[in-house]
Amino acid sequence: MDAVFEATVTAPVNIAVIKYWGKRDAALILPTNSSLSVTLSQDHLRTRTSIRASPAFVTDRLWLNGEEEAVSASKRLVNAITTARSLRAELERRQRQQQQGNVVPLSEWPLHICSENNFPTAAGLASSASGYAALVSALGALFELPQSASELSRVARVGSGSACRSMFGGFVAWQAGAADDGSDSLAVQVAGHQHWPELQALILVVSDQKKKISSTTGMQTTVETSELFAERVRTVVPKRMAAMQRAIADRDFASFAKITMQDSNQFHAVCLDTYPPIAYMNDASRSIADLVHAFNTALGRPAAAYTYDAGPNAVIYALEGDMRDLVELVTYCFPRPEDTTPEAFYPDPFGLLASPACAGQEVAAPKLAELAQSVGRFPAGTVRRIIHTTVGDGPRVLPSSQSLLNPDGLPRRVGE
Amino acid sequence: MDAVFEATVTAPVNIAVIKYWGKRDAALILPTNSSLSVTLSQDHLRTRTSIRASPAFVTDRLWLNGEEEAVSASKRLVNAITTARSLRAELERRQRQQQQGNVVPLSEWPLHICSENNFPTAAGLASSASGYAALVSALGALFELPQSASELSRVARVGSGSACRSMFGGFVAWQAGAADDGSDSLAVQVAGHQHWPELQALILVVSDQKKKISSTTGMQTTVETSELFAERVRTVVPKRMAAMQRAIADRDFASFAKITMQDSNQFHAVCLDTYPPIAYMNDASRSIADLVHAFNTALGRPAAAYTYDAGPNAVIYALEGDMRDLVELVTYCFPRPEDTTPEAFYPDPFGLLASPACAGQEVAAPKLAELAQSVGRFPAGTVRRIIHTTVGDGPRVLPSSQSLLNPDGLPRRVGE
Repeated sequence: MDAVFEATVTAPVNIAVIKYWGKRDAALILPTNSSLSVTLSQDHLRTRTSIRASPAFVTDRLWLNGEEEAVSASKRLVNAITTARSLRAELERRQRQQQQGNVVPLSEWPLHICSENNFPTAAGLASSASGYAALVSALGALFELPQSASELSRVARVGSGSACRSMFGGFVAWQAGAADDGSDSLAVQVAGHQHWPELQALILVVSDQKKKISSTTGMQTTVETSELFAERVRTVVPKRMAAMQRAIADRDFASFAKITMQDSNQFHAVCLDTYPPIAYMNDASRSIADLVHAFNTALGRPAAAYTYDAGPNAVIYALEGDMRDLVELVTYCFPRPEDTTPEAFYPDPFGLLASPACAGQEVAAPKLAELAQSVGRFPAGTVRRIIHTTVGDGPRVLPSSQSLLNPDGLPRRVGE
Repeated sequence: MDAVFEATVTAPVNIAVIKYWGKRDAALILPTNSSLSVTLSQDHLRTRTSIRASPAFVTDRLWLNGEEEAVSASKRLVNAITTARSLRAELERRQRQQQQGNVVPLSEWPLHICSENNFPTAAGLASSASGYAALVSALGALFELPQSASELSRVARVGSGSACRSMFGGFVAWQAGAADDGSDSLAVQVAGHQHWPELQALILVVSDQKKKISSTTGMQTTVETSELFAERVRTVVPKRMAAMQRAIADRDFASFAKITMQDSNQFHAVCLDTYPPIAYMNDASRSIADLVHAFNTALGRPAAAYTYDAGPNAVIYALEGDMRDLVELVTYCFPRPEDTTPEAFYPDPFGLLASPACAGQEVAAPKLAELAQSVGRFPAGTVRRIIHTTVGDGPRVLPSSQSLLNPDGLPRRVGE
């Protein structure tokens, strides 16, 4: 039997607390400002990708969530693969120079790539970050590249900017860098995923009818037309990057929460200051933000922090000890859609709602019960789904038994 | 019969195209930046105020829309009345110095003030601008003050900032000024109401459940917490004030429209950048803004411009020649509430919808018909009421037959 050259990895989703918005170089995906994110656990949200190289393959092929897509149709995908291949080619050249025997010319063989997300597209979660991090991690493993995760994050970056941050677990900064070739625009880990184990995240997936403006188009319109954007880049973000790194180092949730909410709001503010204006948040998104502020007011301290990306979904960060209160309040105020089971609506992975019958039916803490009464209940289905997760680690290399490809190098099955 | 010392005036509403948001002195109501507004016609929206001075009155009394309110309860009202009285006292002093006979000591007599808006509070339109402009104009007439409208606008300003702009018709700038005592913070007319007779306004009153954050509280929170606000004040507004005055002088609707929309969006952007964030626009407001951009795209030129104040209602400026298209589109996409008659929903003061049966039923222009089909119809009552009006003149002094006070100096009747 011939040797099989293949790698399978999973990679996580990351949610920015200092937002990336705006490119100074669109081709290389170099950002106007640094950003900082929290990597979420792959136990709940992940992309799994298998890549095989074989001289028997005719051409590069890609299957995404069970559907074949043309590799050549995505310039970004081609860029990322080409960059990884050139790193492999360099390695092969060095190996040959060093007269090492048995140099496998993987850089010259076509690839079969199979990739699957364990979260439905309908969840409205951006999959390009975990997708490109998985792609580049799998290529790194397959090609046995000597580069560090930071160095490889540059390759993920040319696929999708925020993907570079999914190359690490924990708390990750994407340093904007200054070089024209993008060599210093890469991700570094600020703190590992076990640094602050109490920090958790609650994702509220919100119904939305509106057509989405792609973030690629949107951010460049902001750079070109917002009169306030330059001030954000020049003055606000550098200050916040430093303050956020301090807050994380000190596990200072009050500061973490305030900066997170302020930066989310400012990102949406510069979107609104764009011409024509860009609105990603809707009335439901704003109601959730209001509820988080009311929750903090009721508890007399910042106990939860929302952030919104280029869509209406809310991600709420809170410490483990406050999660039960928060979940009770959220499930009360935002009743599940009638066409969804309680388990699909909120799987309750940490067993917070002891009696499923009680989920969304009452709020135990007296001061929050009062808040719940005064806010009332939004129409069922305003929030369609709740995902509860923790901070997680970086990309994982899996054993070949976990491959998505069958012996012929074709997708093993659809879905996971 | 004794002489009656009384004046009755009406004063207009104004809608800013460069927004006032933020005070540098809260007591004197001195703004952080200049602003510019369009005065709307008193034929459709106005406050009428009658004021009588009499030594027979016991104390200052105020009736607002038929309800008596304590004058002393409003510091701003007391401030405005006191300032006008001191101008009268100065006049009386001068008259006595010049040995003029028969100096009436009006400054020493109690006042009865009766004020009514011809638009219901439920319309969600700010009435403080027209209200204080009417109050100060009536006091100016009653006291026979020699001050110009610009000088009196300082008195209106201490009642409600934006009221100073309702002291003139047409196009009005509120110059922020630099003096600590507010002496140079006043309104000046940029162009009269007949300068650009084609300019009209369509007000869309939007349903809203949310409790409103008062603009007085909101704007100071913005000054204190928005990291982008200073840049707006320092760089953006001065540039826009100059560009807007040029656009008005040139009757350049394209420039007028773009600056109006950009400045409305930026005002709401700094509200969102406030901590906690302030949201005045809702999904319906944003849908109207989207429709205006789509209208302009369909016509291939900027034919309409939205602006939003501290609430969800839209004011859309357009030239007379485009109004029929705009009204057909708006009434189609935003059907009237079922509990409202067509005449109450849109009184059609300019006879645009020849057959009332057609109102909101079809869009004639082919390229707009296509747009209407693609946008579809929002739920009936998303827009509750449409007010169509023109640019109008400044405060008017009415004959005594129009007084709101009866011979005893008490309200003649409730409502108008």
